[in-house]
Amino acid sequence: MSSAQFEGNAVIGQSGGPTAVINQSAVGVVEGLRELGFPGKILGAHHAVAGIVKSDFIDLTDTPQDVLDRLADTPSSGLGSSRDKPDADYCKKIFKAFAEQDVHYFFYIGGNDSSDTCRIVAEMAAADGYDLKAFHVPKTVDNDLVKNDHTPGFGSAARFVAMAFQGDNLDNRALPGIKINVIMGRHAGFLTAASILGRRAGTDDGPHLVYVPEADFDLDTFKQDVEAIYAEKGRCLIAVSEGIHDKDGTPMAVKLAPAVEKDAHGNVQLSGTGALGDYLAAALKEHFAAKGEKARVRADTFGYLQRCFPGAVSIVDQQEARNAGRAAAKAALTSGKPSGTIAIQRVSDSPYAVEYNLLDIAEVAAKTQHLDPKYIVNHRDIDDSFKDYLSPIVGELPTMETIG
Amino acid sequence: MSSAQFEGNAVIGQSGGPTAVINQSAVGVVEGLRELGFPGKILGAHHAVAGIVKSDFIDLTDTPQDVLDRLADTPSSGLGSSRDKPDADYCKKIFKAFAEQDVHYFFYIGGNDSSDTCRIVAEMAAADGYDLKAFHVPKTVDNDLVKNDHTPGFGSAARFVAMAFQGDNLDNRALPGIKINVIMGRHAGFLTAASILGRRAGTDDGPHLVYVPEADFDLDTFKQDVEAIYAEKGRCLIAVSEGIHDKDGTPMAVKLAPAVEKDAHGNVQLSGTGALGDYLAAALKEHFAAKGEKARVRADTFGYLQRCFPGAVSIVDQQEARNAGRAAAKAALTSGKPSGTIAIQRVSDSPYAVEYNLLDIAEVAAKTQHLDPKYIVNHRDIDDSFKDYLSPIVGELPTMETIG
Repeated sequence: MSSAQFEGNAVIGQSGGPTAVINQSAVGVVEGLRELGFPGKILGAHHAVAGIVKSDFIDLTDTPQDVLDRLADTPSSGLGSSRDKPDADYCKKIFKAFAEQDVHYFFYIGGNDSSDTCRIVAEMAAADGYDLKAFHVPKTVDNDLVKNDHTPGFGSAARFVAMAFQGDNLDNRALPGIKINVIMGRHAGFLTAASILGRRAGTDDGPHLVYVPEADFDLDTFKQDVEAIYAEKGRCLIAVSEGIHDKDGTPMAVKLAPAVEKDAHGNVQLSGTGALGDYLAAALKEHFAAKGEKARVRADTFGYLQRCFPGAVSIVDQQEARNAGRAAAKAALTSGKPSGTIAIQRVSDSPYAVEYNLLDIAEVAAKTQHLDPKYIVNHRDIDDSFKDYLSPIVGELPTMETIG
Repeated sequence: MSSAQFEGNAVIGQSGGPTAVINQSAVGVVEGLRELGFPGKILGAHHAVAGIVKSDFIDLTDTPQDVLDRLADTPSSGLGSSRDKPDADYCKKIFKAFAEQDVHYFFYIGGNDSSDTCRIVAEMAAADGYDLKAFHVPKTVDNDLVKNDHTPGFGSAARFVAMAFQGDNLDNRALPGIKINVIMGRHAGFLTAASILGRRAGTDDGPHLVYVPEADFDLDTFKQDVEAIYAEKGRCLIAVSEGIHDKDGTPMAVKLAPAVEKDAHGNVQLSGTGALGDYLAAALKEHFAAKGEKARVRADTFGYLQRCFPGAVSIVDQQEARNAGRAAAKAALTSGKPSGTIAIQRVSDSPYAVEYNLLDIAEVAAKTQHLDPKYIVNHRDIDDSFKDYLSPIVGELPTMETIG
């Protein structure tokens, strides 16, 4: 193939919440373009669409490979991010900036909302007659993109959660009590379910209770669940998704703070506060106090640490994020399609293998994948079979040795 | 030396908060005893003094080396812990259990309160005429034992904090706003100060503000500090110790929740709640709202993760914890003293080298080491020279690459 067929320049954006491997995908796009002889400039959008409308670009065309390699290994969104959701006017500004820079390739790395942004930009470009190839690269620690077996960013965040529970389980074993850990996951319980990955069969390892958004949460049932485990084991380690909600679908976090912040996509603020964990801890303290028992109850909220911590990165996650970026570059240059998304799809469990398949963005955009109900035991635990799905994505965990 | 001179059996206890390397010290004691030909049984106290008074022991005498090695690499207190503070009656129960098991060597691994427990046990044994050698092995993530350059457990917890800030700094850079991270440290700011270790010179890296318990905290000054940084940089990353207090010495956490829990040593509960971070975040949101500005303010509380996370362990910390345990065994068997504590003292910065020196427990027990005031810049930052002290203890951090 001759590079003469590629016209204009390319822009790469990173959107939504950062992850530990989102730079791998950006570097993957750059590498994919270079490998196919793309002759134009490769620009990074500084703070995603918000930077594009201000013509704020970072030129990556001549960035040396060793810098790219170090950038790829660095967590968070190196180009800067944004949660803006473009409307028609916003898109006109995008195309104006693109026209000025002769940009005809657009790569957008992100989750549900960001795939929807990419879809909107692609459709508006077609409607406006602006010649643009717009490709979405999957990313989300929540792992809730449909059509994907899993998404880049999830494996590393899941590794953080699994390792945090390995340590905290032994902490709770050393100083027994009731411990609540609140984990990210707005609508999907994948990350919360990852808390069980290090739980060893035939031990008293926690988490002993796991609450995901896919099951309704009831405070009284929760208290009874905890009481039963605590009576049996003398301790209770609990994993709770930040997105748990009552049977009417109202998130517990919203019930606690009705005046909660919302972003441009209508998402309420769930992270960056310890309120949910503290509320549940207080409810348990009261519950035990009312029965004349004193229980040591503590709550931690893992917060933003879980998405960018440099000490819990999954190697498979890194590789797949890079490959997804390369696949998007290849699709843009060679598929002949004006737009699309790369979906990571598992083709074999043993040996573990995935494919990077090109789909229409509309198949993925703004849709939410949920945890398969088969993994949810009653409303309060995750079946160990979930480990078969999760383990190859997260990688081997450290060995925990216990005695006595 | 003949092993015939050693009479009776030995007990090892792990006390207070777990750390990522406290098992190294327990294994170090076992190895030290074995190497010197100790002929007696080596018993682990299940849950420290609380287990001793119930004659609840874990026999480690014949534990194979490969199990010990895996145990050493496992975070948290493998023998179980306790926060009990023995009085005279409690000690009588200890000596009764010791006499039944023919125990005449006692090793207690812990921090300020645990060293005081070891001192009490040693003094009561002398007063009661019970033949006991009682040795304390240092441990505390807070790093607040006097006479020690630093203490086992701190290096790994500091590594967690430093790496968490490396990731969170880039997260905050990608999605700019005001971010508060609350870090462990009841009376000493060492762990909070560790937040600066990955801060690169000549960049906009945070933390931009650091508040330690060694400086009085004033909420109005805090708001002005944040406002100034936010106006200058468009973002502000803040490290706050859980132990910050007003000029009267009242911890902010106590002001927020007067009915806070206390342990047997009189320590109030600071960890296991997000209240302090949420309070500070709310205060900042209000402050900016009153000025007609909307700021994205988030707070995370690192909580118990920082002391037992298996993905941020310092190798030097592991080695020193092991060596401190061995040194205690050697001191007990060869020094001729009835009691003592091992102090880790730095003898050279370059190359980094430490000694394990035997001191009287009373020199250390229940005393608190504070951060040297020379490191505190005004009331709101830590000088980069602190890195010279910290870096060899924590080890090399991952490289962060930023562009644009």
